[in-house]
Amino acid sequence: MGTSPAAADAALVRRRLDRLREAADHAGVAATVVTPGSDLRYLLGLSGSSFERLTCLVVPTDGASPVFVSPALEYAGLTGLGLEGLGVDVRTWVDGEDPYALALAGIATDRVAVSDLTPALHAFRLREAGATHQVLAGPILRELRMRKDPAELEQLRLAGAAIDRVHARVGEWLQPGRTEAEVGADIAAAIVEEGHALADFVIVASGPNAASPHHSLSDRVIERGELVVVDIGGPLTSGYNSDCTRTYAAGLAPARDIACAYAALQAAQEAAVVAVRPGVTCEAIDEAARAVLRESGLDRYFIHRTGHGIGLDVHEEPYIVAGSNLPLEPGITFSVEPGVYVPGEWGARIEDIVAVTETGVERLNNRPRDLIVV
Amino acid sequence: MGTSPAAADAALVRRRLDRLREAADHAGVAATVVTPGSDLRYLLGLSGSSFERLTCLVVPTDGASPVFVSPALEYAGLTGLGLEGLGVDVRTWVDGEDPYALALAGIATDRVAVSDLTPALHAFRLREAGATHQVLAGPILRELRMRKDPAELEQLRLAGAAIDRVHARVGEWLQPGRTEAEVGADIAAAIVEEGHALADFVIVASGPNAASPHHSLSDRVIERGELVVVDIGGPLTSGYNSDCTRTYAAGLAPARDIACAYAALQAAQEAAVVAVRPGVTCEAIDEAARAVLRESGLDRYFIHRTGHGIGLDVHEEPYIVAGSNLPLEPGITFSVEPGVYVPGEWGARIEDIVAVTETGVERLNNRPRDLIVV
Repeated sequence: MGTSPAAADAALVRRRLDRLREAADHAGVAATVVTPGSDLRYLLGLSGSSFERLTCLVVPTDGASPVFVSPALEYAGLTGLGLEGLGVDVRTWVDGEDPYALALAGIATDRVAVSDLTPALHAFRLREAGATHQVLAGPILRELRMRKDPAELEQLRLAGAAIDRVHARVGEWLQPGRTEAEVGADIAAAIVEEGHALADFVIVASGPNAASPHHSLSDRVIERGELVVVDIGGPLTSGYNSDCTRTYAAGLAPARDIACAYAALQAAQEAAVVAVRPGVTCEAIDEAARAVLRESGLDRYFIHRTGHGIGLDVHEEPYIVAGSNLPLEPGITFSVEPGVYVPGEWGARIEDIVAVTETGVERLNNRPRDLIVV
Repeated sequence: MGTSPAAADAALVRRRLDRLREAADHAGVAATVVTPGSDLRYLLGLSGSSFERLTCLVVPTDGASPVFVSPALEYAGLTGLGLEGLGVDVRTWVDGEDPYALALAGIATDRVAVSDLTPALHAFRLREAGATHQVLAGPILRELRMRKDPAELEQLRLAGAAIDRVHARVGEWLQPGRTEAEVGADIAAAIVEEGHALADFVIVASGPNAASPHHSLSDRVIERGELVVVDIGGPLTSGYNSDCTRTYAAGLAPARDIACAYAALQAAQEAAVVAVRPGVTCEAIDEAARAVLRESGLDRYFIHRTGHGIGLDVHEEPYIVAGSNLPLEPGITFSVEPGVYVPGEWGARIEDIVAVTETGVERLNNRPRDLIVV
């Protein structure tokens, strides 16, 4: 685990903890338990993930001091968080002690929210230690994390621009005769060169592989005339992520029927993006894309939701999916990524990250959305 | 997610599922739910981790067909697992459907074990879908995973030999005047060169940093005469991990008192290793190391457990810790890694992976354990 200086800014941490308590009060929970992962990074600037030794932040809703529990041997590296200065009650433990009782001592536990990524290992042991009535903290933390502040939006703009620079260079590497894995290795290196902390995911899906939305890479040789879906992204050092998909044609424009379907896909993606403004529901954005594909009978080949929120997680709330009547608000950031997948034959997808503004939409990815022949 | 051909061997999968049902029956659970992670890799050869879309294996204890739930768009890439041929009831779902009800349909849910790494997100929703009485699957799966079979032991031997080759080369890079991060980058590259799939962790802790057991890397310049703890490892492509620590002296042997303390540490590590044989408890191994350090008053500087199991996870059951009366059995593999940490001054650790044999112990790391002046 490490610390992120930006998010460790004391005023910001205080403000976020205050907002957490407000949202928790509204949700009727007595305390919120947050284990390592993006939620804890958001609240304290602490990166890293959960291990078998319990690390967690417990925030009582009533305004009592938050509690931070950490293995003593890890806390030695976390003093830079300045938790004591923030009024946090730091409780360290050593192997052989019970960290669950330590986490809950003095905390009202009648209804406790637990962060979504908390492993069952820790959630169930907290339950045995007294937090018997547990609910997910996701709906509470969503209220904080979903609407990005100006500094977060700026990080997402930087991430969008960085991945756009990679897409601008895809023609250097994507050529008929090379394998998906070879092209993917070049793209992964460029993702880091263009300013990401790491290449978190690289999908190069060619020919029939493009019909599988979550295909990653393979040793399949890309053939002339095939469509190739390139879906790539990763975090900046700040933790904020990029995620952008373009579909390329290898060396030759595709047959007329595929070009025609691609044009419908492009229209569907455009329709969903221009539908974005405050007050419109997530499911209405999904339907905006789906309706365009339905006109040409392609909706049956669009087999996933239209998008997902993005920030410190690549996939986070809100999800742009049928059944979600959540209204969009300024500061919400998400992907708009309809696709067409014809099993065993071909596939295409176009994905941009967008931010909801006061009056409409800002696109964070700006490369051309046409089928690009490389 | 991907598939691991070795573990996807049908007879092996059948045997492991049978053993899971036996252990689950013994634990009195009606079904075991396993989400992506090392447990699922062990059972089905499926690597990867959990995302917001539910993927899980549900194994009824009564012998009814296991159920595999997967998002349809991911299952397209998982047909290589051959689950249908194994009699597994594959149930795919698309965005907007309820995967939790799908996972539990037709399953006895009076007491359900949930794999330890399952995110609360999925565990709590399975609870809402009817699995109201949940217990951890860790104690059940531990019975399978803790004792390694000959193929697993061979993978751990290969991993041990690979990381030994890296330690053999540490003198090429570890020199006074270089930073921990510079040395760490060279070691990370060598970890991959010597046969690992990735450099999962690289600790280079110099001078006072060595007194923090989980210090990773920093821009601190290593000074002549300082002790440097180098704790490194990663998985082979099979998923089985290495983990080995040696302590080096940079350019010069240390002062007599430190050399003397190091000698006690070496004796403590040796005492714990030679104590390993079937029937001895985990806490007795911990005590064997601690007792030697106590003789010279150094036990107060040994602030963590003596070791952890290792296999598909770097840290897994059993833990070699006070309070664990679990008796060792042939095939159990774990680390023996006592340390001495003098806050703000210096630290040292010696770590080997060992396997319990029918009559005693096999060391999987075999580099010299002396303080090595480089």
